[in-house]
Amino acid sequence: MLISSFGEFGLIERFKKQIKTDSTVIKGSGDDCAVLKFDKLHHQLYTCDMIIEGVDFTRKDDPYLIGRKAIAISLSDIASCGGTPRHCVISLGMPKSTGVKFIDRLFKGMLDIARLYKVNIVGGDLSRTQKLILDVSILGLVEAKHLVLRSGAKPGDIILVTGSLGGSIHGKHLRFTPRLKEARYLVSKFSVHAMIDISDGLAQDLGHIAKESGVGARIYQGRIPMSKDCANIEDALYSGEDFELLFTVSTKDAAKLLKIKPREFTAIGEVVEKKYGLKSVDNKGWVKPLKPKGFRHF
Amino acid sequence: MLISSFGEFGLIERFKKQIKTDSTVIKGSGDDCAVLKFDKLHHQLYTCDMIIEGVDFTRKDDPYLIGRKAIAISLSDIASCGGTPRHCVISLGMPKSTGVKFIDRLFKGMLDIARLYKVNIVGGDLSRTQKLILDVSILGLVEAKHLVLRSGAKPGDIILVTGSLGGSIHGKHLRFTPRLKEARYLVSKFSVHAMIDISDGLAQDLGHIAKESGVGARIYQGRIPMSKDCANIEDALYSGEDFELLFTVSTKDAAKLLKIKPREFTAIGEVVEKKYGLKSVDNKGWVKPLKPKGFRHF
Repeated sequence: MLISSFGEFGLIERFKKQIKTDSTVIKGSGDDCAVLKFDKLHHQLYTCDMIIEGVDFTRKDDPYLIGRKAIAISLSDIASCGGTPRHCVISLGMPKSTGVKFIDRLFKGMLDIARLYKVNIVGGDLSRTQKLILDVSILGLVEAKHLVLRSGAKPGDIILVTGSLGGSIHGKHLRFTPRLKEARYLVSKFSVHAMIDISDGLAQDLGHIAKESGVGARIYQGRIPMSKDCANIEDALYSGEDFELLFTVSTKDAAKLLKIKPREFTAIGEVVEKKYGLKSVDNKGWVKPLKPKGFRHF
Repeated sequence: MLISSFGEFGLIERFKKQIKTDSTVIKGSGDDCAVLKFDKLHHQLYTCDMIIEGVDFTRKDDPYLIGRKAIAISLSDIASCGGTPRHCVISLGMPKSTGVKFIDRLFKGMLDIARLYKVNIVGGDLSRTQKLILDVSILGLVEAKHLVLRSGAKPGDIILVTGSLGGSIHGKHLRFTPRLKEARYLVSKFSVHAMIDISDGLAQDLGHIAKESGVGARIYQGRIPMSKDCANIEDALYSGEDFELLFTVSTKDAAKLLKIKPREFTAIGEVVEKKYGLKSVDNKGWVKPLKPKGFRHF
């Protein structure tokens, strides 16, 4: 039997259920970041993301953007939990035939984004591989009172997103802005109930929030802000790597937020009770099941 | 120009010198772990290590031992700095054709060693790759007063190792014991001036201590404890992945240590002034330069 019969998430579940953690772990695997005890007022956020030639980028992409992306993805995870990034370590595997110019551009992409978001690159590991591969692990901090997980959505909440969705494959997946500024703004001014970054596609990531929160959700297709490169509504619902924030707040907070920042944030739906499932409403008012499909490695 | 013209360490230097870190970083890249501010009494240790099919293991090796090794290497880095491991995240890349039995064994290898050394597995990332690849990032803690780096060796110090060296390729590289217990014993009872784990080979890793400490060193070949699988003295000096600790203490501490624990630790040489360089003395008393060669990816 092959691992593909379990699928990516089945495999993760299979491993996760065997893991035991001690009392210093506030939240282990299963969210955008692990949450660890730090001090009285703060938690530490910890996560890793691997990107691979031929899956997450191609050898023809600008190496500057490849290096940038490797770190930006992890930054996006820190944003999802409402935190501030602090330190990262980078494992880099590359073929012996890699050119110095290529690697210098890759390094520069990493250095520039690290500097921009004030992340210390504090270590790494270099290996010889057949395909280029980058794995970034990152540490962040979040005030205990500002921590947001996937699990806090409540029926009646409004579902919102930052930016616009779809068509990321045409370039945004390499150039996206990790939504740290927006996340910090949200957690400091509002009570964000649940948050995730859209890495696997809106439908699938909304599915993660719904599952962890024990709720259902209803999305209005006509409300989804579509990127200029977005081909159609399917693209906006199911394609991955937008790296926008998907979050839920009370109706009161949503109204307040949309009044102050109508351009940065868009309401796209509402949280409902679990029994109503995940649904999307098209422009004619037809309600359809929203399948939690999207990008999967297996 | 290809990266191979710089070599692994040249490439790391090229990147490192462009990195700037803030005051929360006590020691950035260039030691076994990065050292980060934690609280008044403790520092946080942070590192990552990537292992790759065809370089660090083969597909014919027991997957249990591959999983075990991925975490054990990182544990060894925490030991090198005198710390205690706490949390890790694991990025795993594997081919779609991987069997469930294989991956269950791999998981079990990781779970068992994590449990044994009380490390919480708190997250990870799963990707599809052509070759099996594992990258483990680990967090540890060390009392500020017990932190050991590569940089504290002093002329007159005695150089010691744990266990025995050489022939690791015949199996030890997959089964070695990360020397956490020994490291904690050393830092709590003695003043350890410099420490590193032997991952690249005795000569090369001694070279790292010498370089970071600004000293020279003299090794007595007849004193080096050779493993049963060790082919010859060259093997003990230059082959990698023994994952034993190499450290220096004062002559007084060395005498005390060797009296209490003569079997666990072996004195193999002494630290000298930088101008004397790195030397090895063979069994006939001939002094030869000790070339800091060993395993390199590029």
